[in-house]
Amino acid sequence: MIVLGIDPGTATTGYGLLREQEDGILTVIKYGVILTPAEDPMPERLLALHRELKDIILLHRPNSGAVEKLFFQKNVRTALSVGQARGVVLLAMKEAGLDIFEYTPLEVKQAVAGYGGADKSQVQQMVRALLELDKVPQPDDAADALAIAICHIHSSRMKSLIEEVG
Amino acid sequence: MIVLGIDPGTATTGYGLLREQEDGILTVIKYGVILTPAEDPMPERLLALHRELKDIILLHRPNSGAVEKLFFQKNVRTALSVGQARGVVLLAMKEAGLDIFEYTPLEVKQAVAGYGGADKSQVQQMVRALLELDKVPQPDDAADALAIAICHIHSSRMKSLIEEVG
Repeated sequence: MIVLGIDPGTATTGYGLLREQEDGILTVIKYGVILTPAEDPMPERLLALHRELKDIILLHRPNSGAVEKLFFQKNVRTALSVGQARGVVLLAMKEAGLDIFEYTPLEVKQAVAGYGGADKSQVQQMVRALLELDKVPQPDDAADALAIAICHIHSSRMKSLIEEVG
Repeated sequence: MIVLGIDPGTATTGYGLLREQEDGILTVIKYGVILTPAEDPMPERLLALHRELKDIILLHRPNSGAVEKLFFQKNVRTALSVGQARGVVLLAMKEAGLDIFEYTPLEVKQAVAGYGGADKSQVQQMVRALLELDKVPQPDDAADALAIAICHIHSSRMKSLIEEVG
């Protein structure tokens, strides 16, 4: 199973592609950020984001996509801007036929660091450890995207365990 | 010149298509709303919105698109939701090669009703009068979309007048 985690934003969208092997081991396929220049008009930036994301999906063919469920933002203006990027991300995933899952920041922290009160750096250290990387993935948005992908894989495992027991 | 005005939302997106004749007369080509079912998952709703909007653009071939510039929303949650729809709308317009323009609610009120303090029903009555319609266009989101299209046409006229004088 290949999972694409996304941390959306108009300036910077983090992405992380993970493969879960049959034996449960997670391997990193790729991670990084899609950047769009602040001086470009918004429609152009959204078009670039959509295009680059579709290219990544086409190249790596993930089965599912995971995005953070966001209810809180610094302010309404930020929320509108993040919402625009998030809309384009969800659209690109749906167009490519991915199964799409959403997780709250609390669910991501719990899945990755073991408790919902974990801070950003604890989550990042756990991402590094779980994926057996030498360093914390950079930039932050890429690490966040990998954390969301890990959260989805853990959550799918829990669900299938529950189904087996049930 | 054909202008497509859009009032974006995830549940209801209003649209209005206007033609400006050489003699300056405005004629309504079409207006209405794109509805997406609340019970569907968000990615599916965004996909439906994107598809219907692209169909409208393909059929009527507008030269430009006009969307309201939004800074204020009831709350962050609404802003995220409107942002998602708005992102998909801007993307569909840009993909189709439209020139895209954004206007604040104040600019729309000033252009349509003559002053920024106009209320919703005054704006709608002016839309009806300017487009020589028998009734106020319904639903409200369609009337709002027509108002945005009128605002763009007025603003373009002003710009070309200024350029002529300049």
